[in-house]
Amino acid sequence: MSPRTEPAAAPITYVIEPYGGSIRRHNHALPLLYPDDLGITRGDGIFETFLVRGGRVANMQRHLERFGASASAMELPEPHLEKWREATLAAVEEWGEGEGKCTWTYTRGRASTGIASAWVTVEAIDAATLAERAHGVEVISLERTWQLPEEFPAKTINYAATMAALRYARARGAQDVIYVDAAGQVLEGSRSTVITAKGSKLRTPQAPGVMRGTTQQAIFAAADAAGWRCKAKAVDLDYLLGADSVWLVSSTRGPVRVTALNGTVLPEPDNAAQLREMMNAAVWA
Amino acid sequence: MSPRTEPAAAPITYVIEPYGGSIRRHNHALPLLYPDDLGITRGDGIFETFLVRGGRVANMQRHLERFGASASAMELPEPHLEKWREATLAAVEEWGEGEGKCTWTYTRGRASTGIASAWVTVEAIDAATLAERAHGVEVISLERTWQLPEEFPAKTINYAATMAALRYARARGAQDVIYVDAAGQVLEGSRSTVITAKGSKLRTPQAPGVMRGTTQQAIFAAADAAGWRCKAKAVDLDYLLGADSVWLVSSTRGPVRVTALNGTVLPEPDNAAQLREMMNAAVWA
Repeated sequence: MSPRTEPAAAPITYVIEPYGGSIRRHNHALPLLYPDDLGITRGDGIFETFLVRGGRVANMQRHLERFGASASAMELPEPHLEKWREATLAAVEEWGEGEGKCTWTYTRGRASTGIASAWVTVEAIDAATLAERAHGVEVISLERTWQLPEEFPAKTINYAATMAALRYARARGAQDVIYVDAAGQVLEGSRSTVITAKGSKLRTPQAPGVMRGTTQQAIFAAADAAGWRCKAKAVDLDYLLGADSVWLVSSTRGPVRVTALNGTVLPEPDNAAQLREMMNAAVWA
Repeated sequence: MSPRTEPAAAPITYVIEPYGGSIRRHNHALPLLYPDDLGITRGDGIFETFLVRGGRVANMQRHLERFGASASAMELPEPHLEKWREATLAAVEEWGEGEGKCTWTYTRGRASTGIASAWVTVEAIDAATLAERAHGVEVISLERTWQLPEEFPAKTINYAATMAALRYARARGAQDVIYVDAAGQVLEGSRSTVITAKGSKLRTPQAPGVMRGTTQQAIFAAADAAGWRCKAKAVDLDYLLGADSVWLVSSTRGPVRVTALNGTVLPEPDNAAQLREMMNAAVWA
């Protein structure tokens, strides 16, 4: 791998002093973190990520609540949520009107000081995500032999298993995976929730260990109001292959249509644009 | 949690320029990493850790080989192992004669530049590890419902599951966990391999998904030569409770005796000091 050469819009970072009292803009051209930060030496931290657009944040309150709950589950110092909100609004104002991805990162901090590291970044949506939104993704199914322990918080910076899954997909000519269990039941995407459309029905897989995605919940609420019949239900790969369309949704990526599953092309249905618009609107409702 | 107040020996850090050509000492009082480092935003990196003592590194070649294999498995740019060796020797020389822990960290680097981050740190053995070596640890068993996928590299910086397990132990008055599977077979410690001594026999649990630890292998080689009968074999918790002694071993923690398992005290046997000395010597053989 060689260094990237294409320029990207510079991210905007605000640092939150974790014991309250101040936020500050961080010059993105300078380093921020120390080599003994437990976020990097131990993956010991949490994150939360969401879209910004038109100077607005989608569902800030919902993310603040989940972030606070993640911090509590990880026994991190209680985050000063008002400071996170303030830093986010400052970063979004500076970012401007364009679409961006906002990430909150909160680590246990330096081993040598015990002081947590906390920052907000707003940056451009990466090119791969834009391409996936426009063109969909080819996916392969992958049996998930692991299941997170129940005491494992949902939104940690543990991403290595996901990276391994994506390498697995790329090695087979696809761009993402959909996990299935040993019995062939569909679980979820590597970083997304699966939604299928068939006739007037929307389905999302129901299976042990699969968390309800907040984006999927928002979409089902909007779809219900628009006359779709929505349900979480056990589905297998044959069900996906027989659906009118299959989608991967998440708080920053989606909706992304699955264009091929294990090599079988899933053609675009007539209502794809309408569905996409409905799902996009739901996130910003 | 409040900031630590006790002073610690300052770590020594050397940075390796990942495209070859240079190493440099990094002032530990300055930040090193950028907020868009994929090592922190995605846990996307590898590490390797080992002891240094008397100006020596235990088994440098073995660690270099495993590090290279981990990098390859993660599709990171091939590390210039000679530069890692050079940086390590420089850091160890500066560290001096005392015992320390050396960690190699290698991440996919900044999202905005695509340039990997690579550094070597030598630091003091933390107080908790020193206390565990001297006094042993109380452990509880924890059923591991997850298993890493086979394509998941062994030494990534994914540590969040371990942190969750340790919090689980602490909440129950212990300091560590020993994982068991659904059938009650012993797997391993959260960051260590289990070794039991009973009569003239040393055992380590054999179970699917449990990797042979390099430290355990070195210990069995030395123990075989010293007349112990060594075997990897399926064992359950009752076997541990009936053993003369139970140990947790790893490349930096060093033999730590289990003093209680699920609340049952495991008394120190007469040969504990002799066993500890044999295991310590094996790591430096």
